[in-house]
Amino acid sequence: MKPIYKGKTKDVYALEDGNYLLKFKDDVTGENGVFDPGANTVGLTLEGAGRAGLSLTKFFFEILKEKGIPTHYIDANIENATMTVKPATVFGNGLEVICRYRAVGSFLRRYGMYAEEGQALDAFVEVTIKDDERQDPPISEDALDMLGVLSKAEYAVLKDLTKQIGQVVKEELAKKDIDLYDIKFEFGRVGEDNQIVLIDEISGGNMRAYKDGVYVEPLELEKLMLV
Amino acid sequence: MKPIYKGKTKDVYALEDGNYLLKFKDDVTGENGVFDPGANTVGLTLEGAGRAGLSLTKFFFEILKEKGIPTHYIDANIENATMTVKPATVFGNGLEVICRYRAVGSFLRRYGMYAEEGQALDAFVEVTIKDDERQDPPISEDALDMLGVLSKAEYAVLKDLTKQIGQVVKEELAKKDIDLYDIKFEFGRVGEDNQIVLIDEISGGNMRAYKDGVYVEPLELEKLMLV
Repeated sequence: MKPIYKGKTKDVYALEDGNYLLKFKDDVTGENGVFDPGANTVGLTLEGAGRAGLSLTKFFFEILKEKGIPTHYIDANIENATMTVKPATVFGNGLEVICRYRAVGSFLRRYGMYAEEGQALDAFVEVTIKDDERQDPPISEDALDMLGVLSKAEYAVLKDLTKQIGQVVKEELAKKDIDLYDIKFEFGRVGEDNQIVLIDEISGGNMRAYKDGVYVEPLELEKLMLV
Repeated sequence: MKPIYKGKTKDVYALEDGNYLLKFKDDVTGENGVFDPGANTVGLTLEGAGRAGLSLTKFFFEILKEKGIPTHYIDANIENATMTVKPATVFGNGLEVICRYRAVGSFLRRYGMYAEEGQALDAFVEVTIKDDERQDPPISEDALDMLGVLSKAEYAVLKDLTKQIGQVVKEELAKKDIDLYDIKFEFGRVGEDNQIVLIDEISGGNMRAYKDGVYVEPLELEKLMLV
């Protein structure tokens, strides 16, 4: 098992059979000890955060599998906080794809002239570049195509998958009376035909969820969802 | 003649016949005394800047008229630094539409991970919101549509007009061996059928132009172009 990459919230290893192993850590993104899914720094360490994030990820990835929505997921070992996945290549140096149902966070900071806080958005999809130095700037379909990061045909697939997966998560949360405000995904190309699939994870750390108008912390979300 | 609006670089008056009069001022945008077409503040006052900007605007708007590309332009009085235009309503509180031929300025600040400084771009179009408080954030076609600022059909017209007008300016500059790096436009709706037309101005203050690899200041550009 060969170490490939040490990330903020998980580490990646290459397995001998060609697949990858993701080790979920207890670190979550945020600033000054406060969780923020949009932050670029590890803000705090929460005992059990890795296993909780993996449990929720397994839950959603298995639902996606049943629905025939492609992901990199193979299987998960909750006790060890590890997930086995197909190897994927990312677009450029990595993109984040955000699906928004309510105007909060960076959307509101940018478009506050035209949006009220918490206003409903119709599964609005936007892409940001993973670039800590430049604060993950949003980028348009045209720019992604022109800079050779993602073709227009790939963008269309990405946007469609994002809406489908966002809807799955939203519906699962709604079953527990939890309201999904926004969620971010990562995608990659898998296999010889470069199929575009969901990679990384779907956990509390990737989304903003509210219950009775109160923000639900990632660990709390994972408890509420997996009861 | 009724004052309507005092802008950074020009003032607007309503005429009795229903048209508007724009008075070009000698103030140009920039910071700390240095011209910057992307800046939101008046950086310096240059004697004759208003008349020079209007002269170049008249030059380009009359070419566009000949080519049948719609603008708000009616006529201009260089001595008084005034231009008569059709009344137009802007999209939301105003948008800027940028056409880029080389990667510089805010494009490079955002996408420096994927672009070299000065790299050629194929008439890349992007829209920013006029919002000083939020530093004129870029906004996507989907967001403009969702927030009710601009429909997708209007976006397509805007993008097409932007490329056409950018090409006209680029070709005129090329006749004087000047290289257009980027240019920003404003558009509005005119008349009962809400036709989308170019408004505002086309002057040195709206573009970055280079000659022999050296940046050409707005007043210098106007001299070079109108010899």
